[in-house]
Parts: sequence; structure tokens; C-alpha cells
Amino acid sequence: MSAPARRGFASDNASGIHPEALAAIAAVNSGHAFGYGHDPYTRAVEERLADAFGGAAGVFLAFNGSGANVVGLRAACRPWEAVICADTAHLNVDEGGAPERIGGIKLLSVEGEHGKLTPALVEPLIARIGDEHAVQPRVLSITQATELGTVYTTDELRALAALAHDHGLLLHVDGARLANAAVTLGLDLHGASTGCGVDLLSLGGTKNGLLAGEAIVVMRAELTEPLRYLRKQSLQLASKMRFLAAQFDALLSDSLWQRSAAHANAMATRLADAVGRLEGVRITRPVQANAVFAVVPPAVTRALLQQFDFYVWDEAAGEVRWMCSWDTTEEDVEAFVAALRECLLARR
Amino acid sequence: MSAPARRGFASDNASGIHPEALAAIAAVNSGHAFGYGHDPYTRAVEERLADAFGGAAGVFLAFNGSGANVVGLRAACRPWEAVICADTAHLNVDEGGAPERIGGIKLLSVEGEHGKLTPALVEPLIARIGDEHAVQPRVLSITQATELGTVYTTDELRALAALAHDHGLLLHVDGARLANAAVTLGLDLHGASTGCGVDLLSLGGTKNGLLAGEAIVVMRAELTEPLRYLRKQSLQLASKMRFLAAQFDALLSDSLWQRSAAHANAMATRLADAVGRLEGVRITRPVQANAVFAVVPPAVTRALLQQFDFYVWDEAAGEVRWMCSWDTTEEDVEAFVAALRECLLARR
Amino acid sequence: MSAPARRGFASDNASGIHPEALAAIAAVNSGHAFGYGHDPYTRAVEERLADAFGGAAGVFLAFNGSGANVVGLRAACRPWEAVICADTAHLNVDEGGAPERIGGIKLLSVEGEHGKLTPALVEPLIARIGDEHAVQPRVLSITQATELGTVYTTDELRALAALAHDHGLLLHVDGARLANAAVTLGLDLHGASTGCGVDLLSLGGTKNGLLAGEAIVVMRAELTEPLRYLRKQSLQLASKMRFLAAQFDALLSDSLWQRSAAHANAMATRLADAVGRLEGVRITRPVQANAVFAVVPPAVTRALLQQFDFYVWDEAAGEVRWMCSWDTTEEDVEAFVAALRECLLARR
Amino acid sequence: MSAPARRGFASDNASGIHPEALAAIAAVNSGHAFGYGHDPYTRAVEERLADAFGGAAGVFLAFNGSGANVVGLRAACRPWEAVICADTAHLNVDEGGAPERIGGIKLLSVEGEHGKLTPALVEPLIARIGDEHAVQPRVLSITQATELGTVYTTDELRALAALAHDHGLLLHVDGARLANAAVTLGLDLHGASTGCGVDLLSLGGTKNGLLAGEAIVVMRAELTEPLRYLRKQSLQLASKMRFLAAQFDALLSDSLWQRSAAHANAMATRLADAVGRLEGVRITRPVQANAVFAVVPPAVTRALLQQFDFYVWDEAAGEVRWMCSWDTTEEDVEAFVAALRECLLARR
Repeated sequence: MSAPARRGFASDNASGIHPEALAAIAAVNSGHAFGYGHDPYTRAVEERLADAFGGAAGVFLAFNGSGANVVGLRAACRPWEAVICADTAHLNVDEGGAPERIGGIKLLSVEGEHGKLTPALVEPLIARIGDEHAVQPRVLSITQATELGTVYTTDELRALAALAHDHGLLLHVDGARLANAAVTLGLDLHGASTGCGVDLLSLGGTKNGLLAGEAIVVMRAELTEPLRYLRKQSLQLASKMRFLAAQFDALLSDSLWQRSAAHANAMATRLADAVGRLEGVRITRPVQANAVFAVVPPAVTRALLQQFDFYVWDEAAGEVRWMCSWDTTEEDVEAFVAALRECLLARR
Repeated sequence: MSAPARRGFASDNASGIHPEALAAIAAVNSGHAFGYGHDPYTRAVEERLADAFGGAAGVFLAFNGSGANVVGLRAACRPWEAVICADTAHLNVDEGGAPERIGGIKLLSVEGEHGKLTPALVEPLIARIGDEHAVQPRVLSITQATELGTVYTTDELRALAALAHDHGLLLHVDGARLANAAVTLGLDLHGASTGCGVDLLSLGGTKNGLLAGEAIVVMRAELTEPLRYLRKQSLQLASKMRFLAAQFDALLSDSLWQRSAAHANAMATRLADAVGRLEGVRITRPVQANAVFAVVPPAVTRALLQQFDFYVWDEAAGEVRWMCSWDTTEEDVEAFVAALRECLLARR
Repeated sequence: MSAPARRGFASDNASGIHPEALAAIAAVNSGHAFGYGHDPYTRAVEERLADAFGGAAGVFLAFNGSGANVVGLRAACRPWEAVICADTAHLNVDEGGAPERIGGIKLLSVEGEHGKLTPALVEPLIARIGDEHAVQPRVLSITQATELGTVYTTDELRALAALAHDHGLLLHVDGARLANAAVTLGLDLHGASTGCGVDLLSLGGTKNGLLAGEAIVVMRAELTEPLRYLRKQSLQLASKMRFLAAQFDALLSDSLWQRSAAHANAMATRLADAVGRLEGVRITRPVQANAVFAVVPPAVTRALLQQFDFYVWDEAAGEVRWMCSWDTTEEDVEAFVAALRECLLARR
Repeated sequence: MSAPARRGFASDNASGIHPEALAAIAAVNSGHAFGYGHDPYTRAVEERLADAFGGAAGVFLAFNGSGANVVGLRAACRPWEAVICADTAHLNVDEGGAPERIGGIKLLSVEGEHGKLTPALVEPLIARIGDEHAVQPRVLSITQATELGTVYTTDELRALAALAHDHGLLLHVDGARLANAAVTLGLDLHGASTGCGVDLLSLGGTKNGLLAGEAIVVMRAELTEPLRYLRKQSLQLASKMRFLAAQFDALLSDSLWQRSAAHANAMATRLADAVGRLEGVRITRPVQANAVFAVVPPAVTRALLQQFDFYVWDEAAGEVRWMCSWDTTEEDVEAFVAALRECLLARR
């Protein structure tokens, strides 16, 4: 098998493995190590990640983002407890019903603003406390950066954490793209999440350049025992864990996470700047991370999809998503903008 | 991070990645490819695997063995249907309750003979058909090679398949070590499983030298749609699927699966031959794949564990498990036998 | 223990057992009968109910309404399939998360109009068909009469059934108060539900005067086997089933269901007419069944609750619910209206 | 509908409602009362039941026995925790997979002795503590009286409680026939269960003469909040709760529970004495409660089933179960024995 030639803006998981991550895998590939995380690599990277989040109570590596989210929320919720999230949350729309079927968790979703929640949106859902006929809100889950390419400021995070904590809820972050958010905020991973009161998070590695790998980071000591059992039970415990560990070690070395995310964000900005000037293109969301959302005429979208992969986000609205990655090049952006320009002109 | 120096007989998943599998990952690591299996690598390897199993109806790559088992059984069972398995089945004792909690499936377990079931053992469990107070048996699940290092002959497989099919059940194989069984039987993967009437199986890649990767192989067309949804919902759908595909492609190339399994089996035979001659060691299970089970005096076990990793299988009985892998060397075996001999002598 | 003196408008389940239903229980209370529905009473009433719904494929008696709903929906949905419902549906807000935790079913809720859905509201939720990342809509569930006291016309039912069937969905009715709706429409139970294309329904007995008892009625033969197993597994299979059967037999005899529902509806109309004329009271929902919703000044609500039981529906809006029952008397209504008038006057 | 003429020994739930229980229902059947247990009857009987069990921390009325068991065990177990029980436990063989599918709980079953467990049988199952690959035993569940008509002595209960508590487990009792056991032991309900260290139990009402009704009794205060939510979520919360309460009130009044159980037990003893003397009948289990198990020639069983209802317990062994109830009469016993004698003679 040989590598694909096609390039595009479909998703940050359409990119391959960052060379430094692949090298890290190769570097630990000899000899024997106990499986399931009982090896020195895993223990070391768990500590390193705990430190990176300002002293987390526990770190649990997992295979993928849906897995990290579902395991984390299963640990947080008793059977009658619910999770508040935005209607656009990955949890709510892209995990195949796993929160409900695998976790048994009811999601209480509310329409966000460009994927973001505010205390005013959340508060009405914290209701009917003590009434056994209603699920009891236990977790407020947000996405940082959001599925719509926006980023919570630290003030916004703190306000949501305060609301959650005032009502005895935990604040959970789906951080599949936490690196991109941190870069936008000019902060480290802790600063963009746990430093503002986040209790539990899924840290994405895959979209940040790993082969596969996410980390559940938890600030609450009482959740570490549940997480250990639930990761296994939820089918997210890798046997050859050292290779997940090595990848995260690479991510934390020489700020790889930051370099990759900064590049992806920069490419998105570049793309947005270029397409924003084109007649017939309307940027629909603040471009704060590595995604550009835009409305384009349907015929243009169809023509452009012949040359580049990307997703139609909202068929009815004609909204598309263009996602940049650690390996998106300036040439990619330029070629794409040129093609888009051509398609727009051809349409007149 | 650098590779571990320690060697042992803890598990075939204590070994690393076969160089050919790692090379295959690197070979597809450039450019962009749609995620979640919608890429040409995955499609190609799905076909190749389907062919290797005599024309499977569907092939679904997954992260790990518990995942492949649970997804497969979820697809096969309606909510009131049960799975018959041996008491020693991985499903029953090593998946953290996932079949029950994640799959909602009751396991009807029966004591096997060195990990193997027979029609006579299974038939009494196919009972109370049509009685809504009792779960209804739907799947007979066996492990090939078993958790106790034994291998079903093709006659034994055919007899179990006949029993299952006569009662309208499916025959499922947990094939985490199917390669080892096939080598023992002198057959290909199909011959050691689906060729004898197996309807659904989990094909192990990880223990056969991959970083991570298993394949759900299904012979029944009606299960392909459920498997597609349930793999995603059960948190087993990888985004950068091409890297799982590339590993399986390597496994099927130049018979890598066979070379690796044959080597592991040969090392186990060599080990069994050597330790079987030592006074104070009693081999407890037929050595038919890559595992050696033995009873050794507890003090010897304790001393030996200082030097080599392995698992105590049954504390009360003093039974231990020594597992060989694709990368176990003759030197490993010799060093281990020498150490065991010394520990036995020291004990007199 | 002796009967309570207090009367009110809290719920139709705050009333006791209709004397005819209690007499029916007593009438079958001697001798022995096989449990779990294998008795002649149950078989007879199952047939009688099937006839009442125009020839249902199956009828399954259950303990309570949440049970009937969850069992019915479990039978209809495969693990990755979802149920569309109104945000105010009992399923969504009053079943303690049972659809999700017990059924594993994701509810796709949408804001209704006085508790009712329309094709225009539902259609956008029938999306992403075939995409394994998203749950697949399988059932459209509505409530007849709704939780807000409104009733679907037969045209409205037919339009929703057509939409559902066009997309391969089933139309489910939570008919906890189907009797009330049928009376409003001047139709029999079939006419107000299955006659208009409903595939699956929960028929309420408890709120219509039974001690306890609901019936799952299904028009699709392929769901009868699942329903039989799932009723048992979902903890809804009564052992002394003849007493549930006898109650439903009473309900169908001399149109008890109709007499009771007509009376309750009439009392609600009377109540609405009377309070609608009072200054300071605003009726908020069309009064089409046995419930009256109104906005009343909070101080009045507080004062009135000293004398009569009823529920505050929406604290923030000051909206209350007054529910009439088969045993609500004209005197109850008059006393209540008088008390309300007094509370309103006292407030000036 | 009129009452059935047929009599038999099928089950204690083939009997109807004890007249005192039915009278109690009628006595509270007027006026309005809040639903779902928020009424004075329920509160009173909860207290009365708590007292009857030596000061229980909580009492929760439920619809049926499977429901009471599943709700109780759900409250006790976190998602990775398991329940140890006898292979013959109702939980394990007669609840349609509800513990696994509804509760998500793996049952660790072990072959009992006439339905009873001993510390020696249980202890080996308390293993692999702290190993996330294995479910963690949390509850030891026994049945008192057992499904095989035997009764645990108080010494046996205390020994099991001690074992459970020493390992941090809870002792749960399925007390569908606790009344029968208490009568056998000459103790009150507390003495035969919670007085010996039982932490959590299902108290059967239905088999003891109620229309329907069971009570979950819990000695651990920390389980009362979970039980409240889980009863609702598990579809076991009755709306017109006062009628369940009234029945339990009757059961506790003038020792109705005791009178009924004593009568049933006496009839079983009488039956066992009579049939035990017949040639061709072999009593197979100690007759300690209200059940008689016997081996009878299959042809005799077939002939006898023409006249009386009862269950074949073990087809292969020719073992049948004859169950006596509160309403079994001496005439029933005599007629049955006479018929059995005739069938035996006819067979020669």
C-alpha cells in the first residue's frame, strides 16, 4: 500500500501521523512491557500529562474521542443523572447514540451560539432537583474548541465553571481540539481548561497529529477508581499501551501539540482571509481555531467537491466546513482558494 | 523514551509491533484520506480479509479484542437473547463485565475441558425456548485457540457448528489467537474457523504483532448493517482507519500472520519440552498453540517472577501461564529454562 | 386505613378506582389461574382490546404508563435507532431517564405547539439516514391527548402517520389519556388512534379509573414476539394478570372508558368556562380534554394550594395545571372556583 | 367475567387476593390522594414496614418481585460491580435477563445445595479484587425461602452475612417468600432476614396473598436516595400507590402475613406427608416452606396434569413442583393425593 495523493479540508483526522509521533512509536518498539498500562512509559506520560494540567488527579489514555467522552461521563454520572450540552455537541450528534445506549445517560441539549453555551442558556436546564420523575443534571459538558470552530475565553470558562459548581455539577470539556483552543488563547493546556475550573476532560491527540490516542484527565480524586474500571468496561483499554503513551510523550515534547495546533490555526486564518474576500462566499462563524465555516452556492460546492474533500455541514443552508490540520500547507490553501475562485466565476 | 530491556512470558501483547506492520503504517503516512474507513486502504483490506475467510459478508476493523467480541455479539443478539460460552472465556472473565453492561447480554457459561466446549456440554443450555421468563440462547461462542492454549480440531468445530445451526444459533469465535490455531491445524484462517461453519468471529491482530487492531468477520449478510452502526456506537470506530488497514494488509502479506504465529507456537513447544523434563514442574494443559500452563511450587514461582514477567493463572492450584510471542527468541526460552532450573534446585 | 377526605385537581391519578373496575377485580377473585397472562381472562380481554383497535396484532397488559411506553419503544427500536417526540412528552420529561437508561434509546425532541407535533416540526429531524455517526430515527411518538390537554384531530394524526410511513418510521402514541381524546373527537378508541395509522400505542387505564393497568397495543405482527420478551424483561409482566385483565374488561363493558372520560372532560370544560371569566386568570392552552392550564398570580396559587391539591406547571410563568377525573364532581368544581374567586379578591 | 373453577398447585401466584387485602383496597377507595407515594397511607405503611424490619433505613413499594430485585441490586452496584447468587436463583433463571439488560449487572452464579449457598461455595467467587479486567463482587444475593422450598437457618444467614461484610459486600435477600421462611423459623420477618445481617431485601406480597405488591427494604441509609430514583427509572413506581400501601397494611394487620404463610406451609407438609408414602413418588428436596418437589414417572405426570395445574421443574429428571398457597385447602390436598394415587396405580 502506498500513501494517498489526494489532499483536502475534510477533517483534521484526514491527515496522517506527525513524524515525531511516529518516531516515538518506533523508539519504544522493542523488548517486552506489561500490557494495559502497567508499563513505565504509560506511568511516566500519565504523570507528565497530570503535570501539564496543573496536577490532575488522574490521567487515562483511551483509543478515541467518543470513547474518552463516554468513559468520562459514565464515571461522573449515577444512573439517574444527566449531562447538559449544546445541541451541536459531538456527544449529542456524532457519537451514534453511545452516551445514551452505552452510558445510559440522558443528554439535556440546548441551542448554543456558534457551538458555545452561556450561563443564561444553561441555568434553566438545572431544574426539578430532587424530583425522581426527572433526570438530575450532574455534568455541564462543553467543547473547547467547539465543533463550530469557536473558542471559549477564560472568562467564559470560569463563568460556566462557577455556575456548574454552584449547583453541584461538574464541568466537563470535550477537548478533541483543546490544543487549537489553547493556541488561540495564548495559554497552555491547563490555562485553556482545568485552570479555569474544568473538572474532567477529554484531551484529543488524534486530531493533533497522533495515529490514535486521547486522554481522559480528571481533577477529582473520587473519579479515578470509576475511570479505571469504566475505561476497561467501555472497551477503551489498549493492551499495547506503551504506544499510546509514546505518542502523548511526543506531543508534550518540544511543544509538538502547540506547534501543530498553531500551524493548523494559522492555515485556517489564512484560508478565511482569502475566501472571505471572494464574492459569493460568506463566512458564517467566527474563525477562532482551525475550522472555517462558510455559505457557498450549492453548485459551487458540488464543483469544488470534485477537486477537494470537505464536508457539507448544513445542506439546507448551503453551509460547508473547511478544516485545516497540522499538515495543511500554504500551497494547499492557495490551490483551494484558486479552485474556489474558479468555481465561483464559472457559475456566473 | 527508549525501549524496555526486560523480556518475559507474560503475554503475547507484551511484545511490540512487528517491523513489517510498523513499516506498513509508515508507508501510508502521507497525504489525506477520509476518516472512519471511507478510504481506499480500508476498502482494499476489507476485501482481502473477506477473501481470506472464504468470502465473508462483511469485515469491520476495530481497536481491540474485547471491542470486537462485544460488537459482534451485540449485532447477533436481540435484547432477550443470550450467549453460551466456556467459563474460562475471555468474554466471561476478562472483559470487565462489558458483555453484560455494554451489550446487555447474559452469558450462559459452562465448565469447559481445558477451555474447550463440546456439544454434550452445550446442549443442556439450549433450553426453555419460547419461555419469556428465560433468556433465549442465540449464540454459541468459543475461543480458537482457547485461553488455555488448546485448539479445536476441524471436526470439533464442525460438530459445534452443526449443534448451533440445528438449534438456530450462530457460532461465534473469539479468534484473538486464531492465527496460532490455524498454524497448529496446518490450515489457513478460513480453514480453522469459517470453513467449518463459524458465522461470526473476532480476528486478533494485536497478539499477532500489530500495534493494535482486530477484525470482526461475519458470514451472514444480515448482520452487516447492525455491525456498521454498533461498531461506531460501541466506541470501536477509528478515525484514522487507514493505519489499522495498513497493519492488516501487512499481516496478510507474505503470510506474516503465519510466520509470526508459527514462531510463537514453536517457542511454546520448545519451552514445554524443556520444562516438562524438569522435576517439580507439571505441564497442566495440552500445549497446542503458544501458551504453556504448568504447576510449579509457589516459592519457585515467586523467585522466578523476580527475573521474568509471567502470570499466575490459579493462585490456589499453583498454576502459572507462560506465553510465547512472535518475538520470543530461542535465547529467551533457554534463559528462562535455566532460571527455572536454578530456582527449582535452590528450593530443595 | 380509611379513605382520604381531601379533594383536588392534582392529577387524574389522584382519584381512586372506579367502582365497576373494583367490582370486576372482586368478581374473578376465587379459584386458581395460571400466572403471567396464561389464563382465560387475559386471553379474552386481549382479544377484546385487539378488536377495539380494529384488529390489533397484539395486546400486552402492563403495570404503568412509563412501562408501557418503554416496552413498546424497546420493541420498535434497534440499538442505534431513535425516537422523535415533543419536548413536553412524558417520555422526555417524566420517566426518570428510563427511555435512555432502560431502553438505551436516544430521544430527538422538538418544541411542540401546546404539546402537539406537526409534519413541519418533525421532518427536519429525519436526517442523516445511513450515517453511522448519527442515531437513526425509527419512531415518531406523540401523546393523545397531550400532556398539555390538547387533542390531535384525525387529519393531524393521518398527516403524521403519512410522514412517518413515508420515511419508514412507526407512529407511536402515548395514550395515557387516549379515552379523553376519543371522547373529544366523538370517536371510539380505534378512531382516535390506530384508525388513523398509529402502529403502536400505550393505552392508559390507570388515569381512566383503574387501580393500575395499561395496555400496549400493536398493529405490526413482527413486534409481538419482541413485546412478549421485553415486557417480562422490562419488569412489566404481572403474575396475577387476571386482575389487570378484569379491570380492562370492565373498562370495555358498557363503555365505562367513555363514560369516565366524558365526565372528566365535561368537568374540565365546566371548570375552564368558570375560571375563564375570572379577572386575573388566563387560560393558556386550548381545553380539549380533561386538563385546564392557566396563569394565575403566584400569591393566589399559594393561597389556593392551602385548600386544593394541584400542580404548578411552570414556576417562572406562573402557569398551573388543574386536572379533572372520572370522579370530579360538579361540587368539586364549584367549590374550587369559589375558592379561587376568593383568593383573587383577597389579593386586590 | 367470573372466577375460575380450576384448582391446582402451579404456584402461589395462581391464587387470588386474600379477602382482607381486597377489603383494604376498598377501604381507601374514595377521595383524592397525591400519586407516586406522596400520600399518608404510603408514608404510614413505609414506617410500619421499617419497624417490622427492626428499623429499616428505607422502604420502597414496587409492583413485582423481579422489579424489587432489580431495583435493589441496581442501587447497590456501581457499573463494574457484580452479584453472587445461586444458579437456581430467580434472578439468574427467571427474570428474562433483566439483571443484565436492565441493570447491567453480571451475576456470578454457583451451584447451590437445594437452592442454598454456603460461605464455602461463595468465598472462591470473591476474587480478583482491584483487577479492572474482572467485575468486582459487591452483593451476595440469596433467596429466603429458596426457589427449591428450603429455608436458611439464622445461623446460616449470619454466617453468610459475616462473610459478605468481611469482604465489604452487602447481603441481599430475595424474599418473595420471606413470610414462609419466617413461619418455618418461628420468627418475625426481621428475625428471618435483617435481624441476621441482611442489608437489602425484596419482601414478597403477591405470593403471600396480595393482588400485586412487593417492598424493597434497605438497612443502609446511603442507598435510600438511589432507590428512590431507580424505582422510578426502573418502571416500578405506581401512581395510585395508596392501593399498594393498603395491601401491605393489611398484610401487617392481625398477622395476616403469618396466617397465610403458616397455612401454605402446613398444606405443603400435609401434601408431602401424604405423597411421600406413595410408591413411585420420591420427595427430592427438604420440605421447609410451601413447596414440594418430587420425582414421579413421566406418564403419571402427564396424566395428573390433565386434572391439576403444576410445573415440571426438570424435564430430564422427571422432577415436578407442587406449590401450596394461602388458599390451598385440605380438600385440595386430598383430591390431589387421591388423583396421584390413581394415576400411579393405573400405570402398573
